[in-house]
Amino acid sequence: MKDKSKRYCVIMCGGIGSRFWPYSRTEMPKQFIDFFGTGRSLLQMTYDRILPLVPAENIIAVTNERYADLVRGQLPDINPDNILLEPARRNTAPCIAWASRHIEAVCPDASVIVTPSDHLITREREFEKAISDGFNFVESHDALLTLGISPTRPETGYGYIQIGEAVTDNIRKVKTFTEKPNAELAKVFLSTGEFFWNSGIFLWSIKSITRAFSELSPEIAACFATMTPAAADYREQVVQAFSACPAISIDYAVMEKAANVYVETVTFGWNDLGTWSALYDNSPKNRDANVTQNCNVLAYNSSGNIFAVRGDKLVVVDSLKDYIVADAGDVLLVCPKAHEQEIKQMVNDAKIRFGEKFL
Amino acid sequence: MKDKSKRYCVIMCGGIGSRFWPYSRTEMPKQFIDFFGTGRSLLQMTYDRILPLVPAENIIAVTNERYADLVRGQLPDINPDNILLEPARRNTAPCIAWASRHIEAVCPDASVIVTPSDHLITREREFEKAISDGFNFVESHDALLTLGISPTRPETGYGYIQIGEAVTDNIRKVKTFTEKPNAELAKVFLSTGEFFWNSGIFLWSIKSITRAFSELSPEIAACFATMTPAAADYREQVVQAFSACPAISIDYAVMEKAANVYVETVTFGWNDLGTWSALYDNSPKNRDANVTQNCNVLAYNSSGNIFAVRGDKLVVVDSLKDYIVADAGDVLLVCPKAHEQEIKQMVNDAKIRFGEKFL
Repeated sequence: MKDKSKRYCVIMCGGIGSRFWPYSRTEMPKQFIDFFGTGRSLLQMTYDRILPLVPAENIIAVTNERYADLVRGQLPDINPDNILLEPARRNTAPCIAWASRHIEAVCPDASVIVTPSDHLITREREFEKAISDGFNFVESHDALLTLGISPTRPETGYGYIQIGEAVTDNIRKVKTFTEKPNAELAKVFLSTGEFFWNSGIFLWSIKSITRAFSELSPEIAACFATMTPAAADYREQVVQAFSACPAISIDYAVMEKAANVYVETVTFGWNDLGTWSALYDNSPKNRDANVTQNCNVLAYNSSGNIFAVRGDKLVVVDSLKDYIVADAGDVLLVCPKAHEQEIKQMVNDAKIRFGEKFL
Repeated sequence: MKDKSKRYCVIMCGGIGSRFWPYSRTEMPKQFIDFFGTGRSLLQMTYDRILPLVPAENIIAVTNERYADLVRGQLPDINPDNILLEPARRNTAPCIAWASRHIEAVCPDASVIVTPSDHLITREREFEKAISDGFNFVESHDALLTLGISPTRPETGYGYIQIGEAVTDNIRKVKTFTEKPNAELAKVFLSTGEFFWNSGIFLWSIKSITRAFSELSPEIAACFATMTPAAADYREQVVQAFSACPAISIDYAVMEKAANVYVETVTFGWNDLGTWSALYDNSPKNRDANVTQNCNVLAYNSSGNIFAVRGDKLVVVDSLKDYIVADAGDVLLVCPKAHEQEIKQMVNDAKIRFGEKFL
């Protein structure tokens, strides 16, 4: 059995989940919601999933400072020093740079899994096996490893990774990262067997990611590399770093530029819960092909809908086909699934009309 | 100026308004709701309308005992002795028989207007004039007078009154009462000019209505005629009377059988707020032909809808045409207006599935 004491996890949980508005709200984004009515939020499910893989004291949560109480409340077993509170929204690269520096200061030999907190993962045994294999790989290679999901449909909402030459059974060099494809291209991707969904779950050693930042995104490295977590003015350093650094994703800042990027192809069940339609497609349906997200529904002449309603509420619908019905107490959304791309605009319109109130 | 001291009003406010479920609820039926966001409930608007016509101390509210606190709270100026609490639901005839006996005991020479509490009336000056004329008529004739509304459309949801010979400019003998007609017949009714909507607003003297009950519905008269409001066991008498008497409407028990029935044809604006569609048809619409009942709505590709949402809530809809969207906090209904007749069945289904909780 491998020594796990130098394995760390960074859970990113600062997003606002605006595509799931109004179910996901600025004050209570989707990672904090008990999405499936299981009694555990997506963040808690993420934590539970990581716990067999990494010592509890090595789990770090990075979030926006406005969610400090939510994270503390939902993950009471996390060391408060391991809850990193971002003073500003700067996308994933600064988040990861900071967490990496935080870990480096206590354990320069660490290996790390970085994971979003708002994805659904099923078949957790396969997940555990995959992450163990990934740790072993990055502990013996100077590698930036990303997890690639075998695509099951020509999804246009995800980025894809094209695989290159094999290193092990499941781990290959990355040939290219691609942006979200159009429907035609997505079908080609699916048919070739060479393209995998980019999961946003990464593994690497602190040494490898630190070097990658220095070489590929020196402006970000400069903001975080000299931070000293033990210093009295650590918080000031953090505020200054976030104020100075650009908002940029880890994919763009590092992964797409690095030469030592690998993909581990995995088979566990995965859904990024990125859109209502994706959630609908991947959820169990009743006999009318409706998906009921944790609420009481009486549906007449209705099919293909997804109902997501907070609280103990009864929803009665007649003659709705392929709609999202989402109720968050003070906001109700009724919108065709096919129009879900418009939700961002609706949120903007709500902001113009009513200010922050309903965001 | 006529002496008004013997004029009384009976406001019937014990209904449950189930056709407006879930906006109207068992615990808060529609007459108690501030339907138009004016700050006054339909019941309060009824009271306000009557106040210029009848001395305040002569206004009597009859309701179910479960709504005692609602009526006391909404009509704080009514003498508590004038709030009559029905121990059981028995339709309008027992309600009116009791109220009539209650008035007779203190003023056997009274004249009375009996009115529902959940209708919308506009052009209140015309209303006042019509009621004054009606009082004058029933104070000088042995007459059971009902108010007939000039129909503006071939409505199939109302009962109609066919007019007979004229007695005054606006008051005529009633030739027939008719049940709700089908669409074809309703068009004929409208074209003849002989048919008026039965408003459910009545005027008569206590002597006339008491005699009518005795002669035409002796079984109801027997339950209430001997009641003595001053007696120590008055409440017991009430409970016994309601337990013994049949549930029957005043139309069926008296109006359709009586020989001395008259109709005053009136021109004030009137809507019985009986169905969502009727409310929609008679409400101001925005430029997308949506009706917004006291709530914030962002509507995209949507028209012909009626939105009735309690509380300070934002409703965002896309691609809804001709729907009812009603939200009462713990129940949401989304249903085509054309299916509103199904709402009663939906309420039944909700009862079977969830008990009384959402009624």
